[in-house]
Amino acid sequence: MNQPIEILEVGPRDGLQNEAEIVSTADKLALIEAMIDYGARRMEVASFVHPKRVPQMADAEDVIAGLPDLGHVQYIGLTLNKRGIMRALATREGGKRGIDQAGCVIVASDTFGQKNQGQTIAEGIAETRDMLRFAKAEGLSAQVTISAAFGCPFEGEVKAETVLSIAEELAAEDPAEIALADTIGVGVPAQVTDLFGRLGELLAGRIPMRCHFHDTRGTGIANAWAAYGAGVRTFDASLGGLGGCPFAPRATGNIATEDLVYMMDNSGVETNIDLEAAIAANRAFAEVLGRELPSRVTRAA
Amino acid sequence: MNQPIEILEVGPRDGLQNEAEIVSTADKLALIEAMIDYGARRMEVASFVHPKRVPQMADAEDVIAGLPDLGHVQYIGLTLNKRGIMRALATREGGKRGIDQAGCVIVASDTFGQKNQGQTIAEGIAETRDMLRFAKAEGLSAQVTISAAFGCPFEGEVKAETVLSIAEELAAEDPAEIALADTIGVGVPAQVTDLFGRLGELLAGRIPMRCHFHDTRGTGIANAWAAYGAGVRTFDASLGGLGGCPFAPRATGNIATEDLVYMMDNSGVETNIDLEAAIAANRAFAEVLGRELPSRVTRAA
Repeated sequence: MNQPIEILEVGPRDGLQNEAEIVSTADKLALIEAMIDYGARRMEVASFVHPKRVPQMADAEDVIAGLPDLGHVQYIGLTLNKRGIMRALATREGGKRGIDQAGCVIVASDTFGQKNQGQTIAEGIAETRDMLRFAKAEGLSAQVTISAAFGCPFEGEVKAETVLSIAEELAAEDPAEIALADTIGVGVPAQVTDLFGRLGELLAGRIPMRCHFHDTRGTGIANAWAAYGAGVRTFDASLGGLGGCPFAPRATGNIATEDLVYMMDNSGVETNIDLEAAIAANRAFAEVLGRELPSRVTRAA
Repeated sequence: MNQPIEILEVGPRDGLQNEAEIVSTADKLALIEAMIDYGARRMEVASFVHPKRVPQMADAEDVIAGLPDLGHVQYIGLTLNKRGIMRALATREGGKRGIDQAGCVIVASDTFGQKNQGQTIAEGIAETRDMLRFAKAEGLSAQVTISAAFGCPFEGEVKAETVLSIAEELAAEDPAEIALADTIGVGVPAQVTDLFGRLGELLAGRIPMRCHFHDTRGTGIANAWAAYGAGVRTFDASLGGLGGCPFAPRATGNIATEDLVYMMDNSGVETNIDLEAAIAANRAFAEVLGRELPSRVTRAA
């Protein structure tokens, strides 16, 4: 039997954040409960960004307050700065369940980083190291995602050396894991094999790896399989491939949870996800959104 | 540098055969010329089936009569029986250019084979061997595709042993190549690695392998990359991801030429296809059809 994988369900955050519609807090919580029912054990549930910047995430604290208090599920909040870590910590005050883990993000491109978070790579490294230290001091688990690791919408190529040197600096702070994200869906399997192969050598099993793919150019599932071959065991995915905005033709979603599970199930790789239940959850949420989601497996089912 | 691949453009046959619209002979010929312009050197241009069964292919002889007479392009006609081989031969009579190669098809499932071609596996093997011998005697190149090799819409699992024993029998007739087709798009990369790995051992370099994938469940491009890893160097693809299969419930189109080329280009694998020209050809043909084609790369471009 092959080694099992863990799927980090990012639909409630990366998915909904990039949809045109604003989904109500109640609908978000119903979605999260459906995800737990189909087997999700790690989930990005919110992003601590300014509500003016990302109105879809304005109810972060309300969503978190409504999460089921289940010991076997880890809730992750995206934190883009120290203020985000403080908001994550605040959700735990007064003995409340709150957020279990902070997800930090650093962009592997000066241009994209400045547009996205107002910081160069060097500034991002300094800020992220500071955030990781702060979270650790406060007793909050924290991991980090290196985004645009496979290419930048503004600069084009992102060198593997750039990504690996960022990873090396961050590894010094001992984050819970280091993820590489193909934020704009330009990567190909050969690149995934190379980059995760080298990251694996760098981290030498000391810090787990995670991967995050978008299916913008049809390579998302191929990249996930290549990542598995390179030793990655944690995969971001979103139910239905949420995150493709129907009003922005070039925007596409994360790889779909169902498509990833289909491939892994049929390759003898355990995912802990009940595929039939995920397909049903997709269809129920498609009713909420009022349109079909991109997952090919659900469309074919 | 990695070993180059050859793309067999199946849009004019497998693509158009499975579209609802009937495309005019003139539009088909314009499409074929655009494909040659973007670099296609092998193409399925027609199917010699009964026009009542597949009305989209009723103009097979007219399309073939209009093909550009180019020495560097190989034209393939699909032949499902000896009558098909005879029709292929007839296109060459009187010194005409005609068809360069017959493409035979055998289904690796008794139930699907009976529905698709009215024959069991055993009957298909006998018929195909007879066709291959007849084509050889008449001086016509012929290859064979084993369809439903990764799963059957009616029987479910198709055993690797079944596929390999069919291949072994056909190999005795020395066809120009043997292809495995995932006709309904159920295959996963681990299965592709296994099946093509074993086929490669069986054929031992004596007969080239070809692969044919559909992207019904999101695994088409991942399967193509796995096939490359297993030593396959010829890949079926259709411009834009045209097509499906009218006799296979819920099947969707072939992997898109543009998506395959994007992945291979960015992996350092030469394809001989000009991606920008293929994207332009997709857009021009989408105008003819009056709707967008599925290729993700063209949508993202």
